[in-house]
Amino acid sequence: MRVLETVGGPADLKKLTPQQLADLAAEIRDVLVETVSRTGGHLGPNLGMVEITLAMHRVFDSPRDRLVFDTGHQTYVHKLLTGRAAQFDTLRQQGGLSGYPSQAESEHDLVENSHASTSLSYADGLAKAYKIRKEDRHVVALIGDGGLTGGMAWEALNNIAAADDLKLVVIVNDNGRSYSPTVGGLATHLTSLRTNPRYEKILDLIKKNLGRTPYVGPPMYEVLHGVKKGLKDMLAPQGMFEDLGLKYVGPVDGHDRQAMEDALRSAKAFGGPVIVHAVTQKGFGYAAAEQDEEDNFHQVRPANKPRGWTDVFADELVRIGHRRPDVVAITAAMLHPTGLHQFAQAFPERTFDVGIAEQHAVTSAAGLAMGGLHPVVGLYATFLNRAFDQLLLDVALHKCGVTFVLDRAGVTGDDGASHNGMWDMSILQVVPSLRLAAPRDSTRLVELLNEAVDVSDAPTVLRYAKGEVFPDIDPIDRVGGLDVLHRSGTDVLLVGIGSMAATAMDVADRLQAQGIGVTVVDPRWVKPVDPKLAELAPKFKLVVTVEDNGRAGGCGAMIAQALRDAGVGTPVRDFGIPQQFLEHAKRAAVLQEIGLTGQQIARDVIEAVAQVQAIDEPAPAADRSAGA
Amino acid sequence: MRVLETVGGPADLKKLTPQQLADLAAEIRDVLVETVSRTGGHLGPNLGMVEITLAMHRVFDSPRDRLVFDTGHQTYVHKLLTGRAAQFDTLRQQGGLSGYPSQAESEHDLVENSHASTSLSYADGLAKAYKIRKEDRHVVALIGDGGLTGGMAWEALNNIAAADDLKLVVIVNDNGRSYSPTVGGLATHLTSLRTNPRYEKILDLIKKNLGRTPYVGPPMYEVLHGVKKGLKDMLAPQGMFEDLGLKYVGPVDGHDRQAMEDALRSAKAFGGPVIVHAVTQKGFGYAAAEQDEEDNFHQVRPANKPRGWTDVFADELVRIGHRRPDVVAITAAMLHPTGLHQFAQAFPERTFDVGIAEQHAVTSAAGLAMGGLHPVVGLYATFLNRAFDQLLLDVALHKCGVTFVLDRAGVTGDDGASHNGMWDMSILQVVPSLRLAAPRDSTRLVELLNEAVDVSDAPTVLRYAKGEVFPDIDPIDRVGGLDVLHRSGTDVLLVGIGSMAATAMDVADRLQAQGIGVTVVDPRWVKPVDPKLAELAPKFKLVVTVEDNGRAGGCGAMIAQALRDAGVGTPVRDFGIPQQFLEHAKRAAVLQEIGLTGQQIARDVIEAVAQVQAIDEPAPAADRSAGA
Repeated sequence: MRVLETVGGPADLKKLTPQQLADLAAEIRDVLVETVSRTGGHLGPNLGMVEITLAMHRVFDSPRDRLVFDTGHQTYVHKLLTGRAAQFDTLRQQGGLSGYPSQAESEHDLVENSHASTSLSYADGLAKAYKIRKEDRHVVALIGDGGLTGGMAWEALNNIAAADDLKLVVIVNDNGRSYSPTVGGLATHLTSLRTNPRYEKILDLIKKNLGRTPYVGPPMYEVLHGVKKGLKDMLAPQGMFEDLGLKYVGPVDGHDRQAMEDALRSAKAFGGPVIVHAVTQKGFGYAAAEQDEEDNFHQVRPANKPRGWTDVFADELVRIGHRRPDVVAITAAMLHPTGLHQFAQAFPERTFDVGIAEQHAVTSAAGLAMGGLHPVVGLYATFLNRAFDQLLLDVALHKCGVTFVLDRAGVTGDDGASHNGMWDMSILQVVPSLRLAAPRDSTRLVELLNEAVDVSDAPTVLRYAKGEVFPDIDPIDRVGGLDVLHRSGTDVLLVGIGSMAATAMDVADRLQAQGIGVTVVDPRWVKPVDPKLAELAPKFKLVVTVEDNGRAGGCGAMIAQALRDAGVGTPVRDFGIPQQFLEHAKRAAVLQEIGLTGQQIARDVIEAVAQVQAIDEPAPAADRSAGA
Repeated sequence: MRVLETVGGPADLKKLTPQQLADLAAEIRDVLVETVSRTGGHLGPNLGMVEITLAMHRVFDSPRDRLVFDTGHQTYVHKLLTGRAAQFDTLRQQGGLSGYPSQAESEHDLVENSHASTSLSYADGLAKAYKIRKEDRHVVALIGDGGLTGGMAWEALNNIAAADDLKLVVIVNDNGRSYSPTVGGLATHLTSLRTNPRYEKILDLIKKNLGRTPYVGPPMYEVLHGVKKGLKDMLAPQGMFEDLGLKYVGPVDGHDRQAMEDALRSAKAFGGPVIVHAVTQKGFGYAAAEQDEEDNFHQVRPANKPRGWTDVFADELVRIGHRRPDVVAITAAMLHPTGLHQFAQAFPERTFDVGIAEQHAVTSAAGLAMGGLHPVVGLYATFLNRAFDQLLLDVALHKCGVTFVLDRAGVTGDDGASHNGMWDMSILQVVPSLRLAAPRDSTRLVELLNEAVDVSDAPTVLRYAKGEVFPDIDPIDRVGGLDVLHRSGTDVLLVGIGSMAATAMDVADRLQAQGIGVTVVDPRWVKPVDPKLAELAPKFKLVVTVEDNGRAGGCGAMIAQALRDAGVGTPVRDFGIPQQFLEHAKRAAVLQEIGLTGQQIARDVIEAVAQVQAIDEPAPAADRSAGA
């Protein structure tokens, strides 16, 4: 019987012998590699967290003491130790375990968010609450060195440093991937590593190694340090945190469970805020992942994936870069995922990876634009929320020509609520002068990207979905800025936005089969609303919009407003994502669940057309006699 | 002839003798005090900037070298030195000089934004652009110690530290008001000072001193330091910045022009990023302002101001605090302006001023809520944009009961584009489960605040205008959650939102005078949309909404969507702020300019009613033969 099977919860850990704990660590690594290679998910970060998590649960008493994990993708070990080992093979599957903490799953989970750098603020608030309520509970925040590059972590540290009576332990999990706050030079070094990718080679490595679990023995603390970090790197954090007035313990070998426990016990006993600096190796215990300089094991995905939106963008931006020496690229710790590594390889001097620092990414882009360049900022759609104010005031108010490329827009699925890119097309509507495009296929992505970088006096935004790019839908006509994709009649004007243009075509086929005449258009640029829409709409009985963005304030709502403003009375039905947080599941399953499929939209539109036709027949006047 | 009159631009400064420069500094202080006491504006910060600004313009060559000022309210001296002395008496007046930098005013102005902590990111981008373009230009960023508490400044420093070949000089203007990053203890000390206000006394002081300009002689550097800052405070910043790998010069007496020039020349010659640490005294040279511990001279406003929205909130929150021991207050360096100083005085242990750190304010509030308390976060409406992501994911996704109170919502006027609170009611619409209220008067503010703090499983937001609270409008009826304010017929259903309820009443009177029957309702809670609106609307010919928020995705757009979803065909006219950046002017003048007055709305509605009546008459069928 494996030790893991005897662990029903954290309390069981406290009875185990050192040998049993060592066996347990090995079992956990087996489970991680075996499961994640099958389900996908974050492998490297969790392999590096085994001993730290064991130590956290042995020293503290969850859920009485609260454990807050920054960017919850490093909680797989925590899940295995808190009664969820038996369900672990359902990781990231619909109805199964979430890839992030989940209050619904366990009383040991609290913060579900996957956006980085929040844990210290949560912990500060929790610890203050327990102090005010006179509850004797500890709060433990675990943050990676990457998370510390986010400004809000510094805002939190600054406040934590001023509150010397909080029972608050901050564990910095320093795997040396991006510890730039203290070691500016290191960040440059890492960027140069990332911008010189050997992507193909690493993919081969993944293919060769997946399924095998070649453990290496726990290296000596000195070796780990001597190899990974110079003397300055070892010492600088201490000086940094102590300048802030924070008690500091470390550096500690994060793969030495006993050393971690000793450090945490000492921090717990101190009674005020303490930083415990743990040095770890991402992917520890799994040779292929340890040696993975380009971080391909951070999140494991199927090999041989088909050509995606990201690839189309990446290739075209390199072409633009050759033509336009003024185009520069910015990313916030997402060089590979956004495809900007290709641009970086071609133009290393014109590429800036600023760390997990979306605010700085956007405002420094404004500075670059003021300096005469055209920055292209590559982000996940959901992370743009972090820099809304900067986009609005620092870029748009100052009429800066900056192009934002939002990857993973719409329903992303597996990664859960906080990864879905369903907010961008609403909040961007409020930004004066901003132009927003949602390409429907790879040809449009290429066209629109080229149009975007030609705009020099306002921000432009392109947004597209995660994964495989959709087959091209060639226009049959162009009316104003609208691509006409289908024309079988004038009952319904169907506006398909971005990747939902394909769904709109499906709807059109279904309507046509029912004898309803449809015209499908793709506006390409969805903001500002093309005035041609208000010209066309009166010729139809019904206007239908379809988008994979929240309905509140989305493209449909803006088109409806534009029609109202133009005095167009044609009824509008706007389909989009209901304004709610979506549970994790595959994209197709989520779309089915929320009714954003061709079949369901067609059914609703057929009903709506019937209603409009009924109203078109003269009916008795509505009762207007009763007041409010 | 005054020296100031001989200064047509920065080049003229370079010819002046030390004595002329000293005279000029005195003249500038005279002009600042004289003008600001009349026009209102930021006095203390600018009095503290005289010698630094002189030194900046003598050492660097603007606009070839670019000067970026954080929170542009400290640029009055810069304006006086760059050819705008003759217009300075028009400061903050409509058509006159802006209270912030303005590209339209001068080629020496670049960054117009008044949100803090952005200057280092701008400067980083500018310096990178000049490097790429091989232009030999320096970039100088001026940031206050307060601005450094904002996380994005740390994101920028982290990146600047990694770029050792940028011609970038960062001047930290350290007036010791809130230098918490390096001196955690100091922040606590300052909070305790602020939470023990002697507001009345200071108001007296302002009244007594305004108009007088009692200069003090330039204190010795040692005296200034010995009095203001302990040894730790003097040394800590150096350690901090050097940990980041940044070259550091200082501390320098920021009121010693020659010392500042020497430091800047040395920084300029260095060739890489350099921090110059200037120590200054806010209000320097004007005794009343120097001694103003509570920062009343930071921004000068007329004395004896009438009871404002802020006062109503401040009083009621104290009452709630007595009743509800679980209610705590959070502010981001806005204790007095948001009225939370009263709560802080009554409940110092339950009040947290986190510095200019909106992100941390919001996520630590989530932590406080998870810990069993109910936080009330007081912010200016425009600054909520800084923490949109945190509100969405850290608070709403986690079902935390946190109340946000947004002061200065709607058109604020004088402070220009970036201070108007015209975005909140749009971006908040996308947040699932969030409840949003816009009180129309003081009675509703009290009611809604009490309702808000009773919500424990979702964020609530109250937003209200700047300045004097509007006279109460008592409801004549309640239908669902709607207050009925006026009922003279069923032609027009007029929805008045928040402070625009008063405007709606004015519109109603004008319509009634034209024989149009109106019902005016105030929804009180504008999100979610009250279902009663969809029940009422079909009884009217026209629905009209009026809000002082951007039209894109605002309350009107959401009401229109709710009516569509309910199958209600009554036409909607939604009045609000056009989606554009507004020039600075008095609130009333801005509202006139954008058509948000009773007279102009009434005129438009009368026209719209006539159109609807024309459509009600059977007309020939629209031409539906032509396709798209």
